[in-house]
This record gives sequence, structure tokens and C-alpha cells, in this order.
Amino acid sequence: MPPLVPKSGDAVFASVERVNAELFTLTYGAIVRQLLTDLEEVEEVNKQLDQMGYNIGVRLIDEFLAKSNVSRCVDFRETADVIAKVGFKMFLGVAATVTNWDAEGTTCSLVLEDNPLVDFVELPDTCQGLRYCNILSGVIRGALEMVSMKTEITWIRDMLNGDDAYELRVKLLKQVPEEYPYKDDD
Amino acid sequence: MPPLVPKSGDAVFASVERVNAELFTLTYGAIVRQLLTDLEEVEEVNKQLDQMGYNIGVRLIDEFLAKSNVSRCVDFRETADVIAKVGFKMFLGVAATVTNWDAEGTTCSLVLEDNPLVDFVELPDTCQGLRYCNILSGVIRGALEMVSMKTEITWIRDMLNGDDAYELRVKLLKQVPEEYPYKDDD
Repeated sequence: MPPLVPKSGDAVFASVERVNAELFTLTYGAIVRQLLTDLEEVEEVNKQLDQMGYNIGVRLIDEFLAKSNVSRCVDFRETADVIAKVGFKMFLGVAATVTNWDAEGTTCSLVLEDNPLVDFVELPDTCQGLRYCNILSGVIRGALEMVSMKTEITWIRDMLNGDDAYELRVKLLKQVPEEYPYKDDD
Repeated sequence: MPPLVPKSGDAVFASVERVNAELFTLTYGAIVRQLLTDLEEVEEVNKQLDQMGYNIGVRLIDEFLAKSNVSRCVDFRETADVIAKVGFKMFLGVAATVTNWDAEGTTCSLVLEDNPLVDFVELPDTCQGLRYCNILSGVIRGALEMVSMKTEITWIRDMLNGDDAYELRVKLLKQVPEEYPYKDDD
């Protein structure tokens, strides 16, 4: 049996099925466009993207736990590292960096310099305030909730709004005690 | 310079960026759900998915031509083969088979036994008539139109409706003459 620790490199994802990133990018663009047409208000679109992401994260966590070979994280610091290095890499093909920890170790930033979601995207002036990548924060929030961590996630920097990177501020609100004993492999 | 013929195996796609198939599947599911909520009529959802696919295909053809190393196809038969073997593999990670040609060589079927779009999908009874994968036929139609082929594409078999495979009937309606000389690499 392989050791229950994260491996490095792409080999860890050998069993993960993949699709073309541009197909994904364009498909995601079609969602955002559709929501803008249907909902009209940018704020409503932001909410809906976040909610879609949440619903996806709630399910994606299973794929992550099954395929990543990551063992239980000892604390939120380790969790953030795993999201940045393993999660982003596994799902989007790019890694994030973790930075700007607060003193308590409950709030940090995930910084993304390359983001497949936004390839070829330019926002028209009518979309001021649109959080184009809000699905991402929703996914992380949903996935973390499934492993007992309630978080609040906000965008601090957004290249589509002229910033030099994407920065997500992740704040751990509450770690819900597990209600039943997990059956661990070890 | 490499020869302008399709190569086999995965090496041909080495330069193609990829994302996790399940993320794509769940994201696509979120679109369909959103459209069902917004448009209510299944027929309208089918049309919208087809239109989204068309818009995506119109742009995806560039990625395909840039990354696939496929040379100009001599006829529609070769085009169908390239879609099935190279296109599907490059974008969805699965190949299709080409079958059921008519005598004129202008209509054929693309059969897909494995389809990442529908992993974990079950249609409720309220979705009778939904062409869940309509985005696919739209993509092919849009992409072919960019290389001067007008096609009509219909679903003949659909596993979500109880069939044993996915079968797309592709009919070449018109091959539009090219209006300007292409600059070829060779």
C-alpha cells in the first residue's frame, strides 16, 4: 500500500481523467455569459457563481480524497498548503501559493498567477464588479465544508480588474467537530 | 519541421493544457441545471445548449488546428475520422468511432461509448426530451463551419435515454468554397 502522504509531480494524478483546458475555459465563459443575460445584476451573477461553485465543491471533495493520496491534515495551515499545491494542481493544472498568514493561523491568502478560467477573457465596462472567478471560491468553500471546516472566502486581487495576480483570502470561521468516528485506512 | 499528418498516441497533445474531467463534468452539469431553471422548457434548453456549443466550436477550431498537427483533410470522410480520433481525444480525452456511412459519403455517425459529460448524471422524469449533451453537437457544427463545412447534426442514440451508446448523425449539407487563398505551412 502506498504511503498516505502527498506525492509531488504529476505522477500523483496519473489516474485522474482530463479534458482540454480551453474547452473548459470556453464552457465556463458560456455560463457566465448566460447568467449575465438571465440575471442582469452583476451582484446576482456573483452570488450564483459562488453557489454553483459551492455545489461543485461539495461533490469534488470525494474525487480529491480518492485520487490525491493526501492524508488527514493536522491543522488549517496544512490544509491551505494542500489546497494550493495539490488541489489547484489536480483540478486546474496550476498551483497556487499560500501567503499572508495572520498571527492566529486561521486566515491566509491563496495567490494564483496563472488561471485557466480567464484565458482570453476581457470584461466589458458593463461588467464592473463582476467576480468572474467566483466559482473557484465557492468550490473551495464547499469542499472545505465537507471536511468540517466553515470558511469565508473573498477576492482581494483580480487580474480582470487590473490587479497583478489573483488573491483569495481564506478565513477559517469554525472547525466543526466530527460527529461520528471516521473509518481510516491506517 | 514536423510532418503535417496526424500523429498517434498522447504525445501529439503534449502541449495541450488540461483540467480535471470531473470538474468539467460538474461545471457542465451546473450550466444545464441553470438553463432548466431559467428557461423551463426542455426544448429551449436544447436549443440554448446547441447555441453555446456552436459559439465554443467557432473558437475551439483554432486550438484544434494549432495543436493537433493535422493537415487539411481531402474529403468529408477524412474530416469525420479526424473529428472522431483526434478531436474527441484532444478535447474530451475519449475517442469516437465513425460508422454508418451513406452511399454518397456525406452522412455518417459518430459513436461514443464513454462520455465524460455525463458521468454521475441521471435525468429526472421531468427532463424527458432533454438533449443533455447538445453542447457537443453544437461544438462540432461550429468548428466545421469555420473550415467551410455546413453540417446538420442530430442525436440518434443517447445513453441518458436508455440507449447503449451515444450516436451523433452528421450530415454534410454544403461545402462552402474558400473565399481567399489560405497560407499553408507547406
